[in-house]
Amino acid sequence: MADDDGREQLTDLVEANDLTGMRLWLAEHQPYEIADELARMDSHLAIIPFRLLDRDRELEVFEELDPVHQQEILGGLRDSAFRELLEEMDPDDRARLIGEVPAKIATRALAGLSPAERRMTAALLGYPEDSVGRSMTPETVILHRDLTVGRALEVLRAKGAEAETVYSLPVVDDGRRLAGMVGLGDLVVSDPGTLIKDVVDVLVPRASAVEPAEKAARLMQEANLVALPVVDSEERFVGLLTFDDALELIEEADSEDFARQSGASPVAGHYVAVGVLKLARSRAVWLLLLIVASTLTINVTQGFEGSLEKVTALALFMPMLIGTGGNVGSQSATAIVRALAVGEVRMRDLPGVAWKESRVGFLLGMMLALVAMTIASLLVGVAVAAAVALSVIAICTWAAIIGSTMPLLARKVGVDPAVVSAPMVSTLVDATGLLIYFSIAGVVLGI
Amino acid sequence: MADDDGREQLTDLVEANDLTGMRLWLAEHQPYEIADELARMDSHLAIIPFRLLDRDRELEVFEELDPVHQQEILGGLRDSAFRELLEEMDPDDRARLIGEVPAKIATRALAGLSPAERRMTAALLGYPEDSVGRSMTPETVILHRDLTVGRALEVLRAKGAEAETVYSLPVVDDGRRLAGMVGLGDLVVSDPGTLIKDVVDVLVPRASAVEPAEKAARLMQEANLVALPVVDSEERFVGLLTFDDALELIEEADSEDFARQSGASPVAGHYVAVGVLKLARSRAVWLLLLIVASTLTINVTQGFEGSLEKVTALALFMPMLIGTGGNVGSQSATAIVRALAVGEVRMRDLPGVAWKESRVGFLLGMMLALVAMTIASLLVGVAVAAAVALSVIAICTWAAIIGSTMPLLARKVGVDPAVVSAPMVSTLVDATGLLIYFSIAGVVLGI
Repeated sequence: MADDDGREQLTDLVEANDLTGMRLWLAEHQPYEIADELARMDSHLAIIPFRLLDRDRELEVFEELDPVHQQEILGGLRDSAFRELLEEMDPDDRARLIGEVPAKIATRALAGLSPAERRMTAALLGYPEDSVGRSMTPETVILHRDLTVGRALEVLRAKGAEAETVYSLPVVDDGRRLAGMVGLGDLVVSDPGTLIKDVVDVLVPRASAVEPAEKAARLMQEANLVALPVVDSEERFVGLLTFDDALELIEEADSEDFARQSGASPVAGHYVAVGVLKLARSRAVWLLLLIVASTLTINVTQGFEGSLEKVTALALFMPMLIGTGGNVGSQSATAIVRALAVGEVRMRDLPGVAWKESRVGFLLGMMLALVAMTIASLLVGVAVAAAVALSVIAICTWAAIIGSTMPLLARKVGVDPAVVSAPMVSTLVDATGLLIYFSIAGVVLGI
Repeated sequence: MADDDGREQLTDLVEANDLTGMRLWLAEHQPYEIADELARMDSHLAIIPFRLLDRDRELEVFEELDPVHQQEILGGLRDSAFRELLEEMDPDDRARLIGEVPAKIATRALAGLSPAERRMTAALLGYPEDSVGRSMTPETVILHRDLTVGRALEVLRAKGAEAETVYSLPVVDDGRRLAGMVGLGDLVVSDPGTLIKDVVDVLVPRASAVEPAEKAARLMQEANLVALPVVDSEERFVGLLTFDDALELIEEADSEDFARQSGASPVAGHYVAVGVLKLARSRAVWLLLLIVASTLTINVTQGFEGSLEKVTALALFMPMLIGTGGNVGSQSATAIVRALAVGEVRMRDLPGVAWKESRVGFLLGMMLALVAMTIASLLVGVAVAAAVALSVIAICTWAAIIGSTMPLLARKVGVDPAVVSAPMVSTLVDATGLLIYFSIAGVVLGI
């Protein structure tokens, strides 16, 4: 179909879901023409060509729209129909359609929503899961650096924003680029004639909307910030991460790490409200993997069945040895996972960490070997006791190395280090520990 | 020795460390007389009779002192000599001497100190370890409820307190009793002639200085508070717990729980800076206890040596069974420890929690039994495989019950639930799991 001047209409291309055709059409038209066409369409259709525009033109077109149609476009960005449409698309097109939205449109799309609606909309705006963009508050008073303090306080009185967002206020320049932050306390104590640019703190940290929210929350804790400004890739202000959200993010992240450390998936929601099936599901996957992995212990034991038949006393110490190895490995893994989470250890520390933990494991092994030696020599012969004691030292050292390096290697390949759980380390140490034990026993007892 | 009018002098009683004599002397003298005597003494001596006064007289005497001697008394409260002296005393006298200090004196004693000095001084003032009193900030602008908003802002401008303490300000009545809190934002948007008592939020939560700091920090997270007012036992304002301290308290508490969950004592300080010996020491105690506890597995195995000799294949599945039991138990324990820490589960939930976890354990056991049955019937006979499968179900259910109830029982007897660590649960399940396994195998195989 063609319009009066013989060209295809945008509506038809959209209805045919012809992305290439839409791109061509958009390239051939002026912002006011595009705005005019968009205004004729249903918002859930108009949003497609709108998101296909590059960022500068997107803002131009948006500003050509009258307020009613701007609202419709913003509504389209929040619409579940848009989300369903995205899910059916090729990954490339999808990435394009949910790419970064201009800061001004993003904050307007997110304004006036409940926290739950805001998170959902932030997803449609292209902020990745668990990113700062999903947790930030876009509704806040923004001060221009050329305002006076007196005028800024008037603006504040007129707007009356949410309490959490007024303690520390973003200061921007002409291009909405973040200049810094100014504390409400500083405004109160400054002379009303002072310019904002003379009291703004330009050295305050900032976060990108796409970076992990947990990292930003821990930065706030380190730097004692009541609010952290969030910017887009062009340093334009898009929102504030406030202290209350930071507190919640840290508590949630720690809860997730606790769950992962025990070999379970994090379960959203209050413990008492979560059903039995959901709890079981959150724990089943790792247990299945681990029970399959633990068949290795059967193979190892079968491989040494000859030794076991000759010296049946060896079987007595199997649970104690692999239990102790698992404990030492879990301790190391947990220490490193936590140190990684709070930023005390980084990838480049890997050799130092492994060396430190191997010494810790060796020391602990020496101490535990004395206990094991005493117990074993009372129950069985000195020869078996010696084999057990030597195995304790070797297994503890090995467990500490495994437990400390695996979380760092997980981080290296982009996996949450917390999945290196106590059960996972224990299971790995079970099989390798038995191998160490039977090998040492073979040499010591000459079997 | 006696003074001019024939009575003993306070100095002599103090030097003789005669607490009974001091109490008598203090009871017989007026505040101004006591102040006069105190002013003559070294501050580290004067602090003893001063702290023996009851709270009301303590404040009266304090106010009789001139500023120089007030400073000396405050210095005495911070003095390490005072702490050493306390350590040598009988528990009763010590409790009296470090009992609650009047709010006014407490805040003055804590003012102007670094966070480290403040924590030490708070200890001398009688606030228990890990209490809110040790983490609060006493230096803050306090507003009287009869002030006007305009006057309050003037006070703020004149005093210029630390940024973290001005976002939300305490409002008190004549007796320094906390009336509520007022947000700086509310002051800014209110008419200058408004009275503070008309804008104060009287429903804001408050914490007692002696309650656990972690509990107060989690309350701030729940209630989205930028600052929590702290009061003494008579509801007098003594300080603010600010959001930055709350963030740090939660991160520290979670780090401690992580360490305890892995069977280690919490280690203060940055991981990279902590030495090998200190790390080993933090983990040694639990490992020693657990290796001793794990000798139970030896006893159990010995008790069933007859069965093992008849069906040696039974030994093959020991590591897999106790490993799986340990994993299920660790998952339950970690879930409950975390739910307790963030306040989702309380003591009265014990029966419900045990019932829920036993069903989760049973479900997981059913699933894992299928896997174990398959593996075992491929390797050994169907009879042994059936015994293994039944044992998996029983052990998983049992492990989930143990793992979920033990943290709650720990809390009941006043122990941090986080000490019920994954290694502890695993070790307990090791011995009991073997007992279950050999018993079931005995019945199924008729041995």
